[in-house]
Amino acid sequence: MTAVVSVSPTQPPTEILARTRKLVEPMLREAIAALPDPLRRMAGYHFGWWDVRGNPAPGESGKMLRPALTVSACLACGGVPEDAVPAAVAVELIHNFTLIHDDVMDGDTLRHARPTVWTIWGIPDAVLLGDALHAVAAELLVRAMPHGVGAQALQRLESAVIELCRGQHEDCHGQSGSGATIADCERMEMGKTGALMGCACALGALAAGAAPATVAALDRCGRELGLAFQFTDDLIGIWGDPLVSGKPTSDLARRKRSMPVVAALCSQTAQAAELARIYGGRDPMSPTDIARAAELIEEAGGRNWTQRQADRHIQAALCELPDARTAADLIALACLVTHRNR
Amino acid sequence: MTAVVSVSPTQPPTEILARTRKLVEPMLREAIAALPDPLRRMAGYHFGWWDVRGNPAPGESGKMLRPALTVSACLACGGVPEDAVPAAVAVELIHNFTLIHDDVMDGDTLRHARPTVWTIWGIPDAVLLGDALHAVAAELLVRAMPHGVGAQALQRLESAVIELCRGQHEDCHGQSGSGATIADCERMEMGKTGALMGCACALGALAAGAAPATVAALDRCGRELGLAFQFTDDLIGIWGDPLVSGKPTSDLARRKRSMPVVAALCSQTAQAAELARIYGGRDPMSPTDIARAAELIEEAGGRNWTQRQADRHIQAALCELPDARTAADLIALACLVTHRNR
Repeated sequence: MTAVVSVSPTQPPTEILARTRKLVEPMLREAIAALPDPLRRMAGYHFGWWDVRGNPAPGESGKMLRPALTVSACLACGGVPEDAVPAAVAVELIHNFTLIHDDVMDGDTLRHARPTVWTIWGIPDAVLLGDALHAVAAELLVRAMPHGVGAQALQRLESAVIELCRGQHEDCHGQSGSGATIADCERMEMGKTGALMGCACALGALAAGAAPATVAALDRCGRELGLAFQFTDDLIGIWGDPLVSGKPTSDLARRKRSMPVVAALCSQTAQAAELARIYGGRDPMSPTDIARAAELIEEAGGRNWTQRQADRHIQAALCELPDARTAADLIALACLVTHRNR
Repeated sequence: MTAVVSVSPTQPPTEILARTRKLVEPMLREAIAALPDPLRRMAGYHFGWWDVRGNPAPGESGKMLRPALTVSACLACGGVPEDAVPAAVAVELIHNFTLIHDDVMDGDTLRHARPTVWTIWGIPDAVLLGDALHAVAAELLVRAMPHGVGAQALQRLESAVIELCRGQHEDCHGQSGSGATIADCERMEMGKTGALMGCACALGALAAGAAPATVAALDRCGRELGLAFQFTDDLIGIWGDPLVSGKPTSDLARRKRSMPVVAALCSQTAQAAELARIYGGRDPMSPTDIARAAELIEEAGGRNWTQRQADRHIQAALCELPDARTAADLIALACLVTHRNR
């Protein structure tokens, strides 16, 4: 399909996310409950269900976007939501395993405005918790996928994990390098975000019993959405309101080479040269530096270009959908991906 | 079976290990070769195949004990060695993923007399490499296990990973605690070593198409061997020759609460009290302290007791074997487990 599909959600994406949480959370909680302590307790804290001591303390938790993609992809392929639950839970577990490990690697101390696992229990326990969630995800997927597609689903999930590892490696090392191109940046973001979103959609299709070509199309759809999501994240990381986004530090303060920055640096403009000088410095960025860098990126066209690319990837994602009627939820989520402030 | 089986190997265990390496290494190398760089290069270095730059540099690598258990368990259940290869490779990958993460957590700088992965590539890349090897193991097992038992095998493998995480957590935290009992120590060592050796044997049985009761018996057999292996490791960690064992630092220098130490501390002797004082100190252990601690552990009976327990677990392992004739290799490996110096 090559037609440009217009984005017109039939119901608010927040409702789809809320519905997904209701559908998916019982199996997620059950999987966590089966872990030995203290892994169980640390996991419940990380998911925002409990406080540090394991007492119920409903806090803010993840958006459940990836499980919603899995359930919506299953619907888009003619399946029933219930069949998508094990895959949705497995994808959410993998996402959180990588978040917990990423927080260790990046030294991030806050997530959803709460101290990260490693800051409370230490690096060894955070590494172990990530490892255990990875194990739970794999076990659950193979055991509970319907239609005998557990093995196929696992192969997709573990391939996504390997891509995630590659992307995170490039992200860790690209932060200090100066010669990153737009293609490098896109490749990194495909690994960090695209691979698992592609997998989330492909597993939804598998859960619906879809044919291989449809599963592959949904994988491509999820990858395009993943890139659009990541580009939007990059915009929020520079121009978002920290109070709304939950990101306390501007990406610029950390000299992160996200897509708007790389696009600006590659623009061969006078602004690119000045931005390169600011990014090349070694002193901590002052608020004036940060404001100036944001201005330069915008003047060099990095902001507009990234926004246009995000829209382009959304269009590419929608072109992969098998049937616009059953794909209403997936279209609504696509709309959410680029129209959000957190 | 309750009869005491005598240990009389028909061929040297070193030959079994060499034969296993020849059988298993091609698939292991193939699995690693499929990783994206630099994960591939880091893995080849860790396995002792390549130097830091990726040039062939045959160094010392692991013993291949766990893959040998898998292949021998398959033989013991009437299977052919080739059927056990995917499971043997998966178990070896999981073992190495946990070693790489453990080295990060424990801050260990040497393994097989070579710098550990994290000391060369940094903690983030070492965490990512472990994560990727975990993914490769799961994918390979589900794809390549014969007789349609991939899902069952994966469930056993991931349960073992969760037990490993629990055991490693207890090991990290037990190092500083003072009230550890023999039961605590055995539970920790079952998690750290018994679970994966049990899994290695159970997967060999599954690869042979064994009945559930036999698979369960082989799991128990491997767990008993694992405890015997770990107890022997604990003895080597105190009384072994560092030049032979490849362990540069005595476990006593790190105030490790391994089984001989815990057994001595629990002995209610005068030696236990003196040992507790030495272990309770905060200054680095002097060579005199280390020598005195080893003496006290021996006088309190900790060395003899641990050796007797290792022998007892070997006997318990052998009692689980289905058929002494097909189990010759497994019996030979059991002999190796307690009669070794590295």
